[in-house]
Amino acid sequence: MAVEKTMDKIVALAKSRGYVFPGSEIYGGLANAWDYGPLGVEFKNNVKKAWWRKFVQESPYNVGVDCAILMNSDVWVASGHVGGFSDPLMDCKECKARFRADKLVEDHMTENGAEVASADGWSNEELKKYIEEHNIVCPKCGKKDFTDIRKFNLMFKTYMGITEDSKSEVYLRPETAQGIFVNFKNVQRTSRKKVPFGIAQIGKSFRNEITPGNFIFRTREFEQMELEFFCTPGTDLDWFKYWKDHCWNFLLSLGMKESNLRIRDHAKEELSFYSNATSDIEFLFPFGWGELWGIADRTDYDLKKHAEHSGEDLSYLDPTTNEKYVPYCIEPSLGADRVVLAFLADAYDEEELEGGDSRTVLHLHPALAPFKAAVLPLTKKLSEKANDVYSKLSKKFNVDYDETGSIGKRYRREDEIGTPFCITIDFDTLEDNTVTVRDRDTMQQFRISIDELEKFIENKLEF
Amino acid sequence: MAVEKTMDKIVALAKSRGYVFPGSEIYGGLANAWDYGPLGVEFKNNVKKAWWRKFVQESPYNVGVDCAILMNSDVWVASGHVGGFSDPLMDCKECKARFRADKLVEDHMTENGAEVASADGWSNEELKKYIEEHNIVCPKCGKKDFTDIRKFNLMFKTYMGITEDSKSEVYLRPETAQGIFVNFKNVQRTSRKKVPFGIAQIGKSFRNEITPGNFIFRTREFEQMELEFFCTPGTDLDWFKYWKDHCWNFLLSLGMKESNLRIRDHAKEELSFYSNATSDIEFLFPFGWGELWGIADRTDYDLKKHAEHSGEDLSYLDPTTNEKYVPYCIEPSLGADRVVLAFLADAYDEEELEGGDSRTVLHLHPALAPFKAAVLPLTKKLSEKANDVYSKLSKKFNVDYDETGSIGKRYRREDEIGTPFCITIDFDTLEDNTVTVRDRDTMQQFRISIDELEKFIENKLEF
Repeated sequence: MAVEKTMDKIVALAKSRGYVFPGSEIYGGLANAWDYGPLGVEFKNNVKKAWWRKFVQESPYNVGVDCAILMNSDVWVASGHVGGFSDPLMDCKECKARFRADKLVEDHMTENGAEVASADGWSNEELKKYIEEHNIVCPKCGKKDFTDIRKFNLMFKTYMGITEDSKSEVYLRPETAQGIFVNFKNVQRTSRKKVPFGIAQIGKSFRNEITPGNFIFRTREFEQMELEFFCTPGTDLDWFKYWKDHCWNFLLSLGMKESNLRIRDHAKEELSFYSNATSDIEFLFPFGWGELWGIADRTDYDLKKHAEHSGEDLSYLDPTTNEKYVPYCIEPSLGADRVVLAFLADAYDEEELEGGDSRTVLHLHPALAPFKAAVLPLTKKLSEKANDVYSKLSKKFNVDYDETGSIGKRYRREDEIGTPFCITIDFDTLEDNTVTVRDRDTMQQFRISIDELEKFIENKLEF
Repeated sequence: MAVEKTMDKIVALAKSRGYVFPGSEIYGGLANAWDYGPLGVEFKNNVKKAWWRKFVQESPYNVGVDCAILMNSDVWVASGHVGGFSDPLMDCKECKARFRADKLVEDHMTENGAEVASADGWSNEELKKYIEEHNIVCPKCGKKDFTDIRKFNLMFKTYMGITEDSKSEVYLRPETAQGIFVNFKNVQRTSRKKVPFGIAQIGKSFRNEITPGNFIFRTREFEQMELEFFCTPGTDLDWFKYWKDHCWNFLLSLGMKESNLRIRDHAKEELSFYSNATSDIEFLFPFGWGELWGIADRTDYDLKKHAEHSGEDLSYLDPTTNEKYVPYCIEPSLGADRVVLAFLADAYDEEELEGGDSRTVLHLHPALAPFKAAVLPLTKKLSEKANDVYSKLSKKFNVDYDETGSIGKRYRREDEIGTPFCITIDFDTLEDNTVTVRDRDTMQQFRISIDELEKFIENKLEF
């Protein structure tokens, strides 16, 4: 029997078990800001560690960086964010509601069965014309009297230093990618990497979205995991395929169900003028298919823009061919919060058990689960021995300890937070140094020696 | 022979080897912003992981959180940051230079041999009086004609949503601590922790400092590692000592030299009115002693302030005594960037070798070193075997690979970036599956089997 996974259920579990809380909750919150609780921070860190391991540590090509959020404003002029990173906004003159004009157009396209419902890159004039020609009305009051469309920049602006004049204007970065591009030379020189090589970064970005929503799917403050992979022009489409496969396999290796994933290759007419290819890996969220991972062939666009604006030579001299060129760049870009939500939704299940019982369970891959195991003394009399086991294991893994309630109840609690293994300490443990290990997914139990526990868990973390 | 460690040397090594680059460098930088390069990001991540392991994972008391940087502005009203988190600024009317009045006073105190040179918490009037009475002149032009002192708030302000009115004003958090306090109830309830317990957080904070400086010692954007440990009133001074020792031992366990550390207990008259005790662990930076880790007994001040402003009951009902109280709080607060600098400075050395040779070396603890090992094929003919070893090890650790230049040169390069072990693949390796391991610190070499490498390195990572 298929269980209905709703956002409400996932948000409720996330809050009640300490995965994700509404931000600043005791003060009434802050529009769509979220705080990761004790389980959420471990889970998200595990996702980030897994990505770093597969995209940096194990990759012979890639290295990492961690750039400042606050950058020189010229960076955002060169990247086009100052001029063009904006939403087209429009007010209803009648009811004063404010809308994104492109969303109105896209919604109308979808309702009318368009195959590609995208107004990406449309000018204000094109949007206005479409709205007028299709007689689109205000979704709130039904009137048809809109203001002109104007651009609203999505970057958060602040002031650095002690005066609020335009000289000290700085932006919170809207993406981590530009920190990589401006450090291209520094990284290439100091790491002595040869093209092809990539630079990866995990970090916070900020976008003043008009309509954030769907829990941690789209938030104004979010964390990105981006790779910029530099290669020789002409090899870019091969590398594009390489990284697309790498991303896809990464998700599968961490247990994401293939049936919840699909690839959407952008049509030629959807591509930015500089892009040779773009694909999205989409995930079937409880609210429908949504973009999870964008992989784009950005050619030499970014490095050339920065070379032009900064005056620095950002070309690369190939030491074998002696050829000088600006490398092409493949960019797989993933939102950490978004993939956390995808893993949560993918792992969530409600299961009927034998005997009419039921359980809520998160089938998280052990590498991602906040706790790798829970140590459960059968009675409090066994807590000394249980604490020994806990101390030993917690030097290696994040481990839970629970001595309250029946073992059955404790199993249910651990199932609900995704702990893959429950380790029960009973009176036999004192005799023969063995424990009962219960597997979250199969619910099978077996006895093993305490000395084997660490190796047993370690093997299960492989991916 | 003692080597002179200067900031210049450390900054130069950091830049040339990919530890830390000036932020936005190709655009002329941004006042005191820094980007971590390929080695720096690994190093800093190792420092954060070590802290998390000792303060969260292995601690039976503590759990973690990861809160949003953008919080409801009422948080900063309650915490006192909107009203009081400011620097007292003053201009010289003659030359227009701008100064921090408290720094002028403190510099004067130091020059005149005061034992405690602190103007912490002084009012504008007190500062002005001191400056006038002691005939302090402008350090730039020597004149004695200052403007009045006014308060300059150190929080970065920005606007959320689509209008720039005061309703949508938000601040970049100036500390991670408040995210913990406002989540006290959420965390306590969902983790079912009993007092005493602590909540830890690592994350970016922002302060619009007038005078940042000394490389990554003081920056406007910085990363904190904070613990708020909640305990029963009356037990707070015991826990204060517990965490002070824990912090001290943490630094020593990661190889920091005790001779570079000292503790400064704040005198009674220096303490904030709500604090029962405060101590700083200071480190001997190349520019002198500087605060590294602040440990403060903040009593029930923060939770009470938030209870008052939010209207939420933030007291705790002790399940054994049935007593209800607002817990006291011990706060060990550490800057990640600052302790990274301390570890770098502590580890830096220039050594004379036998035969008149010399080397620059970073004696970093293996747990902190960016690369745990470097795989070095003696000649490029051995690169296939060397790549096998590299692939195998890089599943477990961050490992370097270098096949250019003489082995001696490659050793020097690895010494300079702090790689604890060099693994040389030679022609014997093909015969007997053994390699030469060379220890960075002792420079001793020995042969071991490839099969033993992983265990060998793993043991060295213990701390």
